[in-house]
Amino acid sequence: MSPVPPGGTIGILGGGQLGRMTALAAGRLGYRCHVLAPEAESPAAEVSAAFTRAAWDDEAALDRFAGAVDVVTLEFENVPVAAVERIARQRPVRPGAAVLAVTQDRVAEKSFVNRAGVGTAAWRPVASAADLGRAREALGGSCILKTCRMGYDGKGQVMVRPGDDPMARWAGLRTDAAIAEAVVDFALEMSVITARGVDGALASYPPVENRHEHHILRRTIAPAPIAAGAAAEAVRIAETLATELAVVGLLGVEMFLARDGAVLVNELAPRPHNSGHWTMDACAVGQFEQLVRAVCGLPLGDPAPFSAAVMDNLLGDEADRWPELLAEPGARLHLYGKREARPGRKMGHVNRLGPR
Amino acid sequence: MSPVPPGGTIGILGGGQLGRMTALAAGRLGYRCHVLAPEAESPAAEVSAAFTRAAWDDEAALDRFAGAVDVVTLEFENVPVAAVERIARQRPVRPGAAVLAVTQDRVAEKSFVNRAGVGTAAWRPVASAADLGRAREALGGSCILKTCRMGYDGKGQVMVRPGDDPMARWAGLRTDAAIAEAVVDFALEMSVITARGVDGALASYPPVENRHEHHILRRTIAPAPIAAGAAAEAVRIAETLATELAVVGLLGVEMFLARDGAVLVNELAPRPHNSGHWTMDACAVGQFEQLVRAVCGLPLGDPAPFSAAVMDNLLGDEADRWPELLAEPGARLHLYGKREARPGRKMGHVNRLGPR
Repeated sequence: MSPVPPGGTIGILGGGQLGRMTALAAGRLGYRCHVLAPEAESPAAEVSAAFTRAAWDDEAALDRFAGAVDVVTLEFENVPVAAVERIARQRPVRPGAAVLAVTQDRVAEKSFVNRAGVGTAAWRPVASAADLGRAREALGGSCILKTCRMGYDGKGQVMVRPGDDPMARWAGLRTDAAIAEAVVDFALEMSVITARGVDGALASYPPVENRHEHHILRRTIAPAPIAAGAAAEAVRIAETLATELAVVGLLGVEMFLARDGAVLVNELAPRPHNSGHWTMDACAVGQFEQLVRAVCGLPLGDPAPFSAAVMDNLLGDEADRWPELLAEPGARLHLYGKREARPGRKMGHVNRLGPR
Repeated sequence: MSPVPPGGTIGILGGGQLGRMTALAAGRLGYRCHVLAPEAESPAAEVSAAFTRAAWDDEAALDRFAGAVDVVTLEFENVPVAAVERIARQRPVRPGAAVLAVTQDRVAEKSFVNRAGVGTAAWRPVASAADLGRAREALGGSCILKTCRMGYDGKGQVMVRPGDDPMARWAGLRTDAAIAEAVVDFALEMSVITARGVDGALASYPPVENRHEHHILRRTIAPAPIAAGAAAEAVRIAETLATELAVVGLLGVEMFLARDGAVLVNELAPRPHNSGHWTMDACAVGQFEQLVRAVCGLPLGDPAPFSAAVMDNLLGDEADRWPELLAEPGARLHLYGKREARPGRKMGHVNRLGPR
């Protein structure tokens, strides 16, 4: 497959900040971007050459969009598979529908990971209160109950403790397909972002430590302060999964480093990942340019950082701190242009180079 | 004057690559950009939220544009002063009409520089073949004849040597206002880019060496390999001129380091400058973000580079070398998305960090 050369048009499914930063990176390489998203407000569209506002089931709009672009990627992994399949009749979508079918469903995802020989927390599929009761028993008396689909930033999940009523917990989740996961006694949470090219080439950024608050990423520390063996294992896992999934683009792999030293996969995201924002300022080729290179069939960039870095998310009205952040020497500020600073909403981030 | 906070809209006069890179930097800080330019093809508009295609004398379009933005800057110093004055009735234009009136005319510019106590090559205004003959005599037997207005990249200038016929040279320039400049025996050509804020604060990138071919910038070497005293003098000159001109935004100052050690000003550009593209990858805050900060009334960023760098322009079909440049570890490629690679046209550039 011949590359999409600079000057070509990249279609982006989803209009949020990950699409915005993808479009900015694509712009630097001379590409045009065309965003497709259902929402009127689109941080990505404001830095792109074209915007199609359309629902995911608007087939005529999907067809027009496909006809107007050279290749398609996505910034949001919950794009309906049917929409991706329709677009893929006309243009390559990278990553494609088969990848999304796995990563959109927690049971499918965990099954895939385990089949690839990679460990996760112990888990059970849950389709009823009775299932939940049995799963909690099997998983050690407590578990985390999560909807199979559409959860993010802690939405759609609940802790189930020994005394809790499974009936109430199950009803509260309002779903018919869930997963119960054992609680992992972890030393730290970490992630690896791996790029995989059209030709199967791999390039992984080093593992980073992620600190969450209220289930939302607060801070990423790059590189993760872990032993070389654990770091190598984390990279090996991410590259194995990217290859087995046949991702073209990026795969963000969230992992636990358990206290017993095991590396366990928590979640996959086949797109740019919040824990990779530090690469924008600490690597010659950051994750967004790397995505553009991968989906356009260009050579992947060197993922080795030239500096350690710490990334802090700016959530809600924390973005109002921009005057002091702009005045701080060495702080690299990124803001997403979102109008409304709702609590917990990701409004921007700041990168600081050097060891923490 | 209160700042234009992130989320606001920056108007950009001119649609070329300098506007494109300004818009990309503005996008990173959460701004929207709105480009006004007469040409249909606009590298800047393709990464901006809005584009008004209009002639510089389309007053209705200028008024609508002004009403749609919060502050205006420019990427092209030959925007007609009348257009800038009209927009400035509604919104601040930074830099403003008074700056352009000086920098659009070589005689006004050289007069201003000398009045500020800064040296240039010896020069004479020329309005006729007879003037040219006398000027060549006064300037040492040879001189460079340049149109006062609208010249760039060597266009609108010609060398006049001892045996040349002044009548033919003058007629060939097809102008009624020109300047004759003495030929400088220089050790190297260099430039300084100084940012000046709304509050008068100054921040200068270090002097760089510029190598030209056929009057077009070929390579910039940062920092310039010159003595500390000459570097300090170059910065002092650039900051003096930015302050005397009351620029808000950027001032690119092209200079000669003469063989006798004198620092002489050649040209001023009140906008981002090709010789500052290296700052995009070698400074925490590059020249385009610095421009955004200056015109929006934000604190200026630290202009100290964290690395030496070499910038090479990609002219015409040299941009076709993108596959090898993308495959070169550490090379930072920037392409402008221009459709047609005419000979000598600036299509992109590549930055490499580290000493040359």
